[in-house]
Amino acid sequence: MPTILGQNQYGKAENRVVKITRDGATHHIKDLNVSVALSGDMEDVHYNGSNANVLPTDTTKNTVFAFAKEHGIESAEQFGVHLARHFVTSQEPIHRARIRIEEYAWERIEAPGEAEHSFVRKGQETRLTQVTYDGESWEVVSGLKDLTVLNSTDSEFWGYVKDRYTTLKETHERILATSVSSRWRFNWTDDAQQMPDWETSYARVKQHMLRAFAETYSLSLQQTLYQMGSRVIEECAEIDEIRFSLPNSHHFLVDLEPFGLKNDNEVYFASDRPYGLIEATVLRDGCEPRIPVDLTNL
Amino acid sequence: MPTILGQNQYGKAENRVVKITRDGATHHIKDLNVSVALSGDMEDVHYNGSNANVLPTDTTKNTVFAFAKEHGIESAEQFGVHLARHFVTSQEPIHRARIRIEEYAWERIEAPGEAEHSFVRKGQETRLTQVTYDGESWEVVSGLKDLTVLNSTDSEFWGYVKDRYTTLKETHERILATSVSSRWRFNWTDDAQQMPDWETSYARVKQHMLRAFAETYSLSLQQTLYQMGSRVIEECAEIDEIRFSLPNSHHFLVDLEPFGLKNDNEVYFASDRPYGLIEATVLRDGCEPRIPVDLTNL
Amino acid sequence: MPTILGQNQYGKAENRVVKITRDGATHHIKDLNVSVALSGDMEDVHYNGSNANVLPTDTTKNTVFAFAKEHGIESAEQFGVHLARHFVTSQEPIHRARIRIEEYAWERIEAPGEAEHSFVRKGQETRLTQVTYDGESWEVVSGLKDLTVLNSTDSEFWGYVKDRYTTLKETHERILATSVSSRWRFNWTDDAQQMPDWETSYARVKQHMLRAFAETYSLSLQQTLYQMGSRVIEECAEIDEIRFSLPNSHHFLVDLEPFGLKNDNEVYFASDRPYGLIEATVLRDGCEPRIPVDLTNL
Amino acid sequence: MPTILGQNQYGKAENRVVKITRDGATHHIKDLNVSVALSGDMEDVHYNGSNANVLPTDTTKNTVFAFAKEHGIESAEQFGVHLARHFVTSQEPIHRARIRIEEYAWERIEAPGEAEHSFVRKGQETRLTQVTYDGESWEVVSGLKDLTVLNSTDSEFWGYVKDRYTTLKETHERILATSVSSRWRFNWTDDAQQMPDWETSYARVKQHMLRAFAETYSLSLQQTLYQMGSRVIEECAEIDEIRFSLPNSHHFLVDLEPFGLKNDNEVYFASDRPYGLIEATVLRDGCEPRIPVDLTNL
Repeated sequence: MPTILGQNQYGKAENRVVKITRDGATHHIKDLNVSVALSGDMEDVHYNGSNANVLPTDTTKNTVFAFAKEHGIESAEQFGVHLARHFVTSQEPIHRARIRIEEYAWERIEAPGEAEHSFVRKGQETRLTQVTYDGESWEVVSGLKDLTVLNSTDSEFWGYVKDRYTTLKETHERILATSVSSRWRFNWTDDAQQMPDWETSYARVKQHMLRAFAETYSLSLQQTLYQMGSRVIEECAEIDEIRFSLPNSHHFLVDLEPFGLKNDNEVYFASDRPYGLIEATVLRDGCEPRIPVDLTNL
Repeated sequence: MPTILGQNQYGKAENRVVKITRDGATHHIKDLNVSVALSGDMEDVHYNGSNANVLPTDTTKNTVFAFAKEHGIESAEQFGVHLARHFVTSQEPIHRARIRIEEYAWERIEAPGEAEHSFVRKGQETRLTQVTYDGESWEVVSGLKDLTVLNSTDSEFWGYVKDRYTTLKETHERILATSVSSRWRFNWTDDAQQMPDWETSYARVKQHMLRAFAETYSLSLQQTLYQMGSRVIEECAEIDEIRFSLPNSHHFLVDLEPFGLKNDNEVYFASDRPYGLIEATVLRDGCEPRIPVDLTNL
Repeated sequence: MPTILGQNQYGKAENRVVKITRDGATHHIKDLNVSVALSGDMEDVHYNGSNANVLPTDTTKNTVFAFAKEHGIESAEQFGVHLARHFVTSQEPIHRARIRIEEYAWERIEAPGEAEHSFVRKGQETRLTQVTYDGESWEVVSGLKDLTVLNSTDSEFWGYVKDRYTTLKETHERILATSVSSRWRFNWTDDAQQMPDWETSYARVKQHMLRAFAETYSLSLQQTLYQMGSRVIEECAEIDEIRFSLPNSHHFLVDLEPFGLKNDNEVYFASDRPYGLIEATVLRDGCEPRIPVDLTNL
Repeated sequence: MPTILGQNQYGKAENRVVKITRDGATHHIKDLNVSVALSGDMEDVHYNGSNANVLPTDTTKNTVFAFAKEHGIESAEQFGVHLARHFVTSQEPIHRARIRIEEYAWERIEAPGEAEHSFVRKGQETRLTQVTYDGESWEVVSGLKDLTVLNSTDSEFWGYVKDRYTTLKETHERILATSVSSRWRFNWTDDAQQMPDWETSYARVKQHMLRAFAETYSLSLQQTLYQMGSRVIEECAEIDEIRFSLPNSHHFLVDLEPFGLKNDNEVYFASDRPYGLIEATVLRDGCEPRIPVDLTNL
């Protein structure tokens, strides 16, 4: 046989589960998009179509919904841990489970006396997590995407390399804007360790990330990225590694001189494409990088 | 000539203008997407390609950016009024201008001492407005889209028509969720009238809309829609008409019985397609409807 | 009551129905996205939540799938006629039905001996239709969207109005590109008339539209639009009116002089936003326009 | 310093370049979306904002457009090779360049005498390539996405594992549909080797992939995937590895019995979410896998 099977995984993607917890008249909501990917002894199904080792993707979907009832959804990370452990420990041929989750935040509608069961989607960033289990150790990588931020000053760009194709003018005053996509890896890997408080951790990471963005006087988006990453590593002992993918969302100062007007850093054209794309990992010193270089959807 | 030209309009769409106002160290931001559509004596350009009456779409783009400097951006509506008036009054062949604007809201990043020029996009609904001027009277239709809301109880659906194709079970307890798309028309039509306070009006409409959604015990999404619309008309004297397009974002209770579990209105599957779609206009009594039946992008 | 109900409609949107017809070993496929909107005596459900006149949207969904079996899917238009007639004639409170359909084209995979049941989605434009029936007369508006076309020469733009905000340079050689969105109205309105051959008509409209685009030496996109529209009206006796929404997909000639290179109309930057937007209706002389000015999703 | 910099890369993403080649009256078009990512001695810019080693992303954009003139665009792969070599060999601090390209196919509009410069976008799959160079060896991974295929018979699914959460019924007749996303790696790594004919190779890969999909009697999507992959490896000597990400685009047979109808494998509901997701690598025996497990955008 001239060809062989390499890495493979399968499962049901994008199970949209909404869990309502009814604490008397006060309700709570968790809104997740859960994707299951399983790996193991799967040669037969690829080589000859035998499904003898295949738990159907439909069953993995059912499990997601059943577990929302059986275990509740304390946090996306905790829910992922329940699911991953289940698939690996209950199915002999399955050696590794990876659960990816998107979470959509809701806030209560402020209405006198009716707020207990009425919600409006917050709509800011999407929260992410990926939980992987191989029967022995855990890897939890959480993150966020589509968190759009902008500094209207305190950003410069100059002193760069110039070659034959360089036409860009140096600037000592520009808008710095980006839509943050980030993933961070927890150093919790073992059931014997105490689990992080996932909800608290997320809130702190987001806060430090935003503050570092706001407080950095920036000479390049790379510098801002590093400040955001190192702030998270320094402030969050539970995290060893963080990666960012930051588009440089260009806001070009519009030339108003042809109209006899002076643009004193007031009017900008927000451009779509092309955009700079700055990507980097920041690590706790001594730790090995494990987050893939190219961030994927979940 | 067996064919003739009917209604036509042209202009530059989706001009992404960002305006920074620098009040000392404290900055303010307005972030708009502006589309211009002009109509008038345009037979020649269609019939034989003569551009003698055509102000280039590129010029309409330049005007948007220049006006952000010359007039500032007090509100999307006020900015639209400046633009529409300019095109109709400065160009003989142009008889009607329609300005559509999307607005993206930003909030300040909470960081000690640095919050004055650092922003994060709010990311909830997109605010909309459409300003039309024909040289004599104004029509201002504002709105919003992608405001996602959910009631986790106080919704029923029963007592409906059953025909040969009906299989739906009646329910006295369901989730009611929708993504609100709405447009409302102001009764300000004349320069002699006092202009509404556009910013205050928007905040009040959104608040009343959310509250009416939260406070309505619903027997159908149509009933909820009407409550939302009539609340806005009753509370906002500046508005005569409002239209909604409300997808019924189905949250199906998952059948957990095959797994020996009872789903006590806790675990739901959030479905994408198909979805119910409920659309209606609510009018101040005595007013003529003018908002088109099918809401378009802006 | 200070507020009243205006125009309203409801139904199930985006029912994705795929019909396989098995002609022995040779299969045929129809792939539709069907949206139902019903209007009639619907005051009660809005004012007080009584569903006594409401056929559930779930039932309208069931009807779509059942009709795919009962009537087959000869064409999107014919399928829409079956559905619209059914809702209006079988339900007393329903006075008007509007069926919107998207159709996705497939072609056979060329494989020796296996092509009879294997398909690849064509992926070019999306075909559209809207069938409306009020119990007496029919209106059928068909169309397409996302048909992207480009002429690499034979396009000029000059001789336009210049005002204070005009900076655009005139050109006698440019790329003309657009993504065609179009709707056309049939003059078939009565069961007593012979129905058009919907499949043949669609193919001819698309062909004439493409050819008129290719053959027009263009002095403005408006001129090209009018040529495309009048060609369809002239060649297709079954159509009385056509409307286009044509973005001017700008391809800017890149300035290569800073690099010591001459750009002899070879290298272009394809821009996303902003874009010119040219919209117009072309009518058979003597006919009334009925297609709405702003084309909506379906 | 408690934190350190890990892998990083930067450049201008999504440069939309269109190249027209004018062969007398007959024109040719290449339509690419090019993203540049550079790595090297970039510690300083991250740690302290010094741009002394940073070639601006704006310059990388300029280079893309200039190279379209200087080298032409013979194929996406060849164009990527030119760009990657340039950045690594001309800039001391840059040690590695990765060029990602999307290509959109066009076909000629069939119009008598005018077809030479008029095009319509084909609109089927998007072609992809990624060229990486470190100054010594090359890695070229090409691919495609959004190629939607469907077999209306010759697909079964049974004999799978059943656990407590399994409710799926076995089937011996179902629709098998997917939207192919695939990447394949060439064994061309050295300038001393003869380069593949990139255009011919792409056409052959696509053809073999489609045929293998059509000709496989499928007991599981995994089996079909493996057949598609091994066919490509067997038929294309220039390729050593191929990976697929195949959503199982469920087409559920609609239950028409409540309406007194029999659904003889005719009427299906095409579902959006959730979907099965089947991913695997197929390798030439003896080769090392190098394509990342999670396929990213380009």
